[in-house]
Amino acid sequence: MRPQIYLFGDSITEGSFCDGGWGSSLAHHFSRTMDVVLRGYSGYNTRWALKVVERVLPAENGGAPLAVTVFFGANDACILDRCSGFQHVPLHEYKQNLHSIASFLKNQWPTTLILLITPPPIDEEERLKHPYVENPLGLPERTNEAAGAYAKACIEVAGERGIPVIDLWTKMQQFPDWQKVCLRKSFSLENSQKNNSDGLHLNQTGNKVVFEEVVTKLRENGLSLETLPFDLPLISEIDTKDPLKAFEK
Amino acid sequence: MRPQIYLFGDSITEGSFCDGGWGSSLAHHFSRTMDVVLRGYSGYNTRWALKVVERVLPAENGGAPLAVTVFFGANDACILDRCSGFQHVPLHEYKQNLHSIASFLKNQWPTTLILLITPPPIDEEERLKHPYVENPLGLPERTNEAAGAYAKACIEVAGERGIPVIDLWTKMQQFPDWQKVCLRKSFSLENSQKNNSDGLHLNQTGNKVVFEEVVTKLRENGLSLETLPFDLPLISEIDTKDPLKAFEK
Repeated sequence: MRPQIYLFGDSITEGSFCDGGWGSSLAHHFSRTMDVVLRGYSGYNTRWALKVVERVLPAENGGAPLAVTVFFGANDACILDRCSGFQHVPLHEYKQNLHSIASFLKNQWPTTLILLITPPPIDEEERLKHPYVENPLGLPERTNEAAGAYAKACIEVAGERGIPVIDLWTKMQQFPDWQKVCLRKSFSLENSQKNNSDGLHLNQTGNKVVFEEVVTKLRENGLSLETLPFDLPLISEIDTKDPLKAFEK
Repeated sequence: MRPQIYLFGDSITEGSFCDGGWGSSLAHHFSRTMDVVLRGYSGYNTRWALKVVERVLPAENGGAPLAVTVFFGANDACILDRCSGFQHVPLHEYKQNLHSIASFLKNQWPTTLILLITPPPIDEEERLKHPYVENPLGLPERTNEAAGAYAKACIEVAGERGIPVIDLWTKMQQFPDWQKVCLRKSFSLENSQKNNSDGLHLNQTGNKVVFEEVVTKLRENGLSLETLPFDLPLISEIDTKDPLKAFEK
């Protein structure tokens, strides 16, 4: 069986196989070496994720995966008394839930690489233009400041456990004009409607940032095209004079 | 465990998770309902595929998948005495190999939908511009006529077995200017370099044709977003007053 990486997260994971999405880019990159298994659940926070993690990533699903990305926080960070307040999870509970998810995975699959990803930054102006529910207050239901606090908490969890983390919140804001570069629709793209960029979800460049960060972290932890075995002989390894020789076991 | 569809084929399958690729589009479409498992092997013909099918699709890999796409022929159809002749498989053997692969799958997983896909048409002019190996003869190593003969044979196999088939060779040539529309690079796309269009491999439009045909055939055989259960409650099904209720088993 081919090794696997599970992508466990919210809508930014569920939508990661859009055109140029970070999930499909991973699957393309590892097309002969690793299966990229999508387990994204739009709208989910860590409280709900913790309720379902045993069903999403059951022990009996074959062997241990090589890696699992755990990418939550964008919904936990919804402001409690605003229009998406039902998704809010208090900061201390978010930290505890991430610990619990990581403990569950560590206990079940001791050798599996757990890779945390912080929530991305929020473009509040765009969030107001694309409400998911009625927003009578007229205030953004997610703020960049709150996302930053949850990102910091996520990094703390990684530090406390000694596991890798991608600080997407900081990384994306290093781009000048990051809102436009990473989060807004790029109309030059034929299929841009598939990227429902709305100040929270990522456009192709934002997706590329996540893809490159994940590939880098996997590589730092020994998982790369240089170390993973290719599934079956590559065409370049096949003797044109005697092709079938390559398929003798 | 989530139901699965395996994509078994050559480079047009291996590359199907490129930006806008038919594999990633399937994974996006079925993001909460079905795992799309990539088993593409660049350069492979049905002779080699038959040698490895037991290793690629082993019975012990959990339950039977819902569907398997079998998409070979572009390499079998290489002209014997031209520069990619080592990939050539005679037409009658191609037919027999497709039958053998389908028999293997049918025997192992009687309920699994087997979906054959014919090779696409060939843009010979472009093939000459993008040789894969040294081409001293200066003749295209793949021709559209040969691809058409293999496509016809593939359709015959499907007819003989009573299984569905996508006639990609005919379908694509129904577009006026099909070479440009389905097979040539579209430079309007940021990431077009990821589509290595070369007169054989598909551009984003070509990929979209395959995606839509596969979705249609799956639907005709009872596999669609309307019939497949969604994995875990959708955000729209969660009671905002009592979210955790949705996660009681």
